[in-house]
Amino acid sequence: MTNPVLVEVLRGGIVESAHRGAVAVFDAAGRSVLEIGDVEQPVFPRSAVKAIQALPLVESGAADAYGFGNKELALACASHGGEPVHVDLAAAMLARAGLDGGALECGSHWPSHQDSTLALARAGGAPNDLHNNCSGKHSGFLCTCRHLGIGHRGYVAAGHRSQEMVRDAMQGVTGAAHEQANSGIDGCSIPTYAVPLKNLAVGFAKMLTGQGFSPSRAAAARRLTAACMAEPFYVAGTGRADTRLMQTAPGRIFVKIGAEGVYCAGVPELGFGIALKAGDGGERAAEVMVASVLGRLLEGDEALSKRLSGMARTPILNRRGVEVGVARPAEALLA
Amino acid sequence: MTNPVLVEVLRGGIVESAHRGAVAVFDAAGRSVLEIGDVEQPVFPRSAVKAIQALPLVESGAADAYGFGNKELALACASHGGEPVHVDLAAAMLARAGLDGGALECGSHWPSHQDSTLALARAGGAPNDLHNNCSGKHSGFLCTCRHLGIGHRGYVAAGHRSQEMVRDAMQGVTGAAHEQANSGIDGCSIPTYAVPLKNLAVGFAKMLTGQGFSPSRAAAARRLTAACMAEPFYVAGTGRADTRLMQTAPGRIFVKIGAEGVYCAGVPELGFGIALKAGDGGERAAEVMVASVLGRLLEGDEALSKRLSGMARTPILNRRGVEVGVARPAEALLA
Repeated sequence: MTNPVLVEVLRGGIVESAHRGAVAVFDAAGRSVLEIGDVEQPVFPRSAVKAIQALPLVESGAADAYGFGNKELALACASHGGEPVHVDLAAAMLARAGLDGGALECGSHWPSHQDSTLALARAGGAPNDLHNNCSGKHSGFLCTCRHLGIGHRGYVAAGHRSQEMVRDAMQGVTGAAHEQANSGIDGCSIPTYAVPLKNLAVGFAKMLTGQGFSPSRAAAARRLTAACMAEPFYVAGTGRADTRLMQTAPGRIFVKIGAEGVYCAGVPELGFGIALKAGDGGERAAEVMVASVLGRLLEGDEALSKRLSGMARTPILNRRGVEVGVARPAEALLA
Repeated sequence: MTNPVLVEVLRGGIVESAHRGAVAVFDAAGRSVLEIGDVEQPVFPRSAVKAIQALPLVESGAADAYGFGNKELALACASHGGEPVHVDLAAAMLARAGLDGGALECGSHWPSHQDSTLALARAGGAPNDLHNNCSGKHSGFLCTCRHLGIGHRGYVAAGHRSQEMVRDAMQGVTGAAHEQANSGIDGCSIPTYAVPLKNLAVGFAKMLTGQGFSPSRAAAARRLTAACMAEPFYVAGTGRADTRLMQTAPGRIFVKIGAEGVYCAGVPELGFGIALKAGDGGERAAEVMVASVLGRLLEGDEALSKRLSGMARTPILNRRGVEVGVARPAEALLA
C-alpha cells in the first residue's frame, strides 16, 4: 500500500515538498487506537527504542550497583547533542564501572549540537566516542557487562552477550522476531532489527504502563521511561524536539526519535503507545507527525493539545531569520 | 498523480527508506526524451537555476567590465561550501565593483563545508554573508547593479530592478509565467518561482546549446554553463556531488543542485536538458537520481556511463566508517 501524505512543507502559499508516512497508536493489550498507512510494515526503529535497549542495565542490577539516578538512566536512553554536560555524564557513568571513553565502540563524530562543536573546535579539541550521540547507551551496555563480569571487548557484535540481552529485551517487549534476516547494523555499530510499527506501539504502551510485563520488568520499564520524562535534557539537548516536547507536559509525554524519520512515543495517562515513520526518512516530518498525533490524543486537555498542535507547525526561516514557509500536518494526519 | 519510488535506501538487505520523485529530460525544441512521474507539476527550482539567474551579469556587460573569467562566473552560478577560496573570490568580485561583503543581503551561515567551519572557529572567527553558499550569485547581482548604475540597496526584493532582470531571464528561458501567485522567498531572500519540471528541462537544453535563443543570449548562456563545467570546484566544493559529477567528464556534463531535492542538468553533446525533484525534498535522493539519469543518457559512452551509474550508488557508513547500507536507484529510475 502507498502511505498517505502526512506532512506538507510550504514556501509562500505553495506546497514545495511532501512527506508520506505511517502512524500506529495502540494500547498494551494490542487494541488499535489510531492507524494511518501501513502499520504492519517492518521498520528499523533505530534509536527510538533505546529505552527498551536499556532494560538490561536496570534488570541486571547494574544501574543500582553504580548508583545511577534519573539523569544517568535518561542518558542511557538518549540520542544526545554531545553537549559538555552529556559528554561529562557519560564519562562519569563509565568511571563508576572502572572504565573510560576508550572502552566505547560506537565511533566518534562532532557533536550534533552546533555550538558545542564550535566550542570544541575553538578550544583546539576534537571529538571522541564520548561525543557520539549514542555514548550514553553504550556506557549503559559497558556498565552492564562490568557488573555481570562479562568481558566487554566487542560488545557491539550481535553474538556478544551484551547484544543478546538487548535482543531478548526487544523481542520480549515487541513480540516480534529478531533474526539475521530482518537485521541491519546501526550507525553506532550495534545490530538493529526491522519491527512492524504496530508491535513498536504496543511495546511502548507496555513500557509506559507495565501492563503485560512481569513485576520486575514493569518496574524497570517505568523507571527508565520516567527517568526520560524527568530529565528530558539528557535524552536530547538544547533546542531539540524530544526535549521540548517532554518539557511541555512534564511526566505526561514520552517521546524518542530514531534516525530515518522514526518516533516511538506514548502517553502514560491514556495507556497508549505510538510508533511512526516518515517513509523517506525525513526527521523534520517525523517531528511534525509526533507533535500532531500527541495533540490529537490529548485533546481532552485543551491547553496542552493546543500547545502540541502549535509545536507541529515548524516555521521555515531564510538566512536572515524571516519566516518564508512552514512544515505542517497534512489533512490525512489531522482527520 | 503519485510519483514512483525512484531511490531506495537500504540497511543490510532491507529497504529502510524510499524517495519518490519526477524526472524530465527534453531537448531545446521541447521534444520529450524521458519522462518519469509528473513533469508538468510546478516546483521551486531554488538554486538549481543560478546559471539562468546569472544571465544579466553577462548580458549587461558587467562580467566583461569587471574582467570576470570562468572562476568568477562559476562562483556566480554556485552553491559553494564557504571554503576560503570561495569566500575570497566573492570578496574579490565585489572589490572589482568597489564594494565589500557588507553590501550582501543574503544573510550569513557557517560554511556548509565542515572543515571550513571548524577552521573558522579555531581561528576565532564567525561567519558573515560571504560564507553564505549564495554569496557568489549575490556578488553577481551587485556587480550588475554597479555596472548599470542602479542603486544596489534592497536588491533582493522582487520589485528591485536586479530581481526584475533575473525574473525576465527566468521567464525568457523557461517560457513559464513568473508571478506573485507562484512565488516564494528563497533561503537567500530573493524571490523564487514555481516552474514545471518540463519547462526547466527545456530551458537547460537551451542554456547548453543556445538553440532558440538570440545570438547574444546563446553566447551568454554557453559562456556561463561552460564556466561551470570548466571550474566545478567553484560551483560547489570539496567532496560535493556537483563538483564530482562535472569533474568525471570535463565539459560534457552540467549539473546544479537546488534545495529541497532539485537538480537542473544537461548533456551538451546530446542537446538534452534535465530537471528533477525528489518530492520529499531529499538531497541524497536527488543526487542518486541525477547520476543515474546521466548514466542512462550517456550509455553510448560505456566507460563514462558506468562511472556515472557507480556514482548513483551512495554507500551509507556507520560512525566507524563501515558500509552498512546504500542509497541506490529504484527499478522505476533504471527501467
